[in-house]
Amino acid sequence: MVKQERAVRTRRTVLEAAAHVIGARGYQGATIAKIIQRAGVTKGAVYFHFRSKDALARAVIEEQTDPFVPPVSDSRLQDAIDFSHQVALALRSDPMLQAGTRIAVETTFTEEPLVPYQAWTDIMTAIFTDAQSNGELLPAVAPDRAAEFFVAAYLGVQLYSHAASNRADLPERVTALWRHTLPGLASPGALSRLDPQGRSRKVAA
Amino acid sequence: MVKQERAVRTRRTVLEAAAHVIGARGYQGATIAKIIQRAGVTKGAVYFHFRSKDALARAVIEEQTDPFVPPVSDSRLQDAIDFSHQVALALRSDPMLQAGTRIAVETTFTEEPLVPYQAWTDIMTAIFTDAQSNGELLPAVAPDRAAEFFVAAYLGVQLYSHAASNRADLPERVTALWRHTLPGLASPGALSRLDPQGRSRKVAA
Repeated sequence: MVKQERAVRTRRTVLEAAAHVIGARGYQGATIAKIIQRAGVTKGAVYFHFRSKDALARAVIEEQTDPFVPPVSDSRLQDAIDFSHQVALALRSDPMLQAGTRIAVETTFTEEPLVPYQAWTDIMTAIFTDAQSNGELLPAVAPDRAAEFFVAAYLGVQLYSHAASNRADLPERVTALWRHTLPGLASPGALSRLDPQGRSRKVAA
Repeated sequence: MVKQERAVRTRRTVLEAAAHVIGARGYQGATIAKIIQRAGVTKGAVYFHFRSKDALARAVIEEQTDPFVPPVSDSRLQDAIDFSHQVALALRSDPMLQAGTRIAVETTFTEEPLVPYQAWTDIMTAIFTDAQSNGELLPAVAPDRAAEFFVAAYLGVQLYSHAASNRADLPERVTALWRHTLPGLASPGALSRLDPQGRSRKVAA
């Protein structure tokens, strides 16, 4: 294995360890020492890639959207729905995603929030912009504003679901989110063809 | 001052101190010692009312909805809108409300979430049920499900606003929440008469 490959692997191992420790203990409770222990690498290897717990947390947040490739079909609104269900299923098992949410929420009230909402908002803005070009949106809907609203509402829905059922009811709550918001987003012609439960219950990620 | 009055006042003083300390340091960072110091009362007086930090946090959550009396007019959906704007304005200044949010969010990921969403959901369910009787809701809308969705979405919107602008843009984001959700809630006749910005920008609480 060449040096660079090994470095990439070590970086990934450390990130996964950080996600695990932060997911279990929270951002305040996580320590670099625990992360090093979990990763099973040397202290030097960790500090080679990340200078601090803050840098590790930022990397977890930046990379949490990486595995998700939203579907592309002739209905971009249906793609948005399917994408949100993919993420909902992953939120129940993906430590990187769970850690990202926890970091986001726990640092909201600190001086420097590590805000991860922008990456999700950019993805949704791109999809809604395509939907607008396709004539799927109501004329009054602005794709960027709709995306900000949707990401915010989705954040609340997943926290509510976490508190209510440890995320067991998240798919139903995501469906309800779409049922309540699609009439304010979709043109009447598009609306009648959309399935708020998603085209497939399978994880496409 | 009779004994009982004094006890009620002391209890309130301790609760306000707890809200202040938790609002500033977070639930994990707050200690009973700091709360006692802030309240300026004896340790015995605090423990007379509250057995633990957990009991204090629960009381903050239980009492945060108390000062809010939703308006009652012939449009219950407009009442819901106005109420949500009242709460948004209060969230920018009321330490009890800010502490309640912080406790809710920070304990979401622990073994025993101190979930405060039920009280808000009950208030919204009551308003939406009246709106249904008035004929203001679309036939497919279930008041309790709509209330759960709304409270969850509102939670996300206020966290997003906190991270984006320290809640400066919260009124605009609450208006956007209603613009995006009213078409899925309100009957066409009701929809045309509703103002998502609220009837008055003044705090009615």
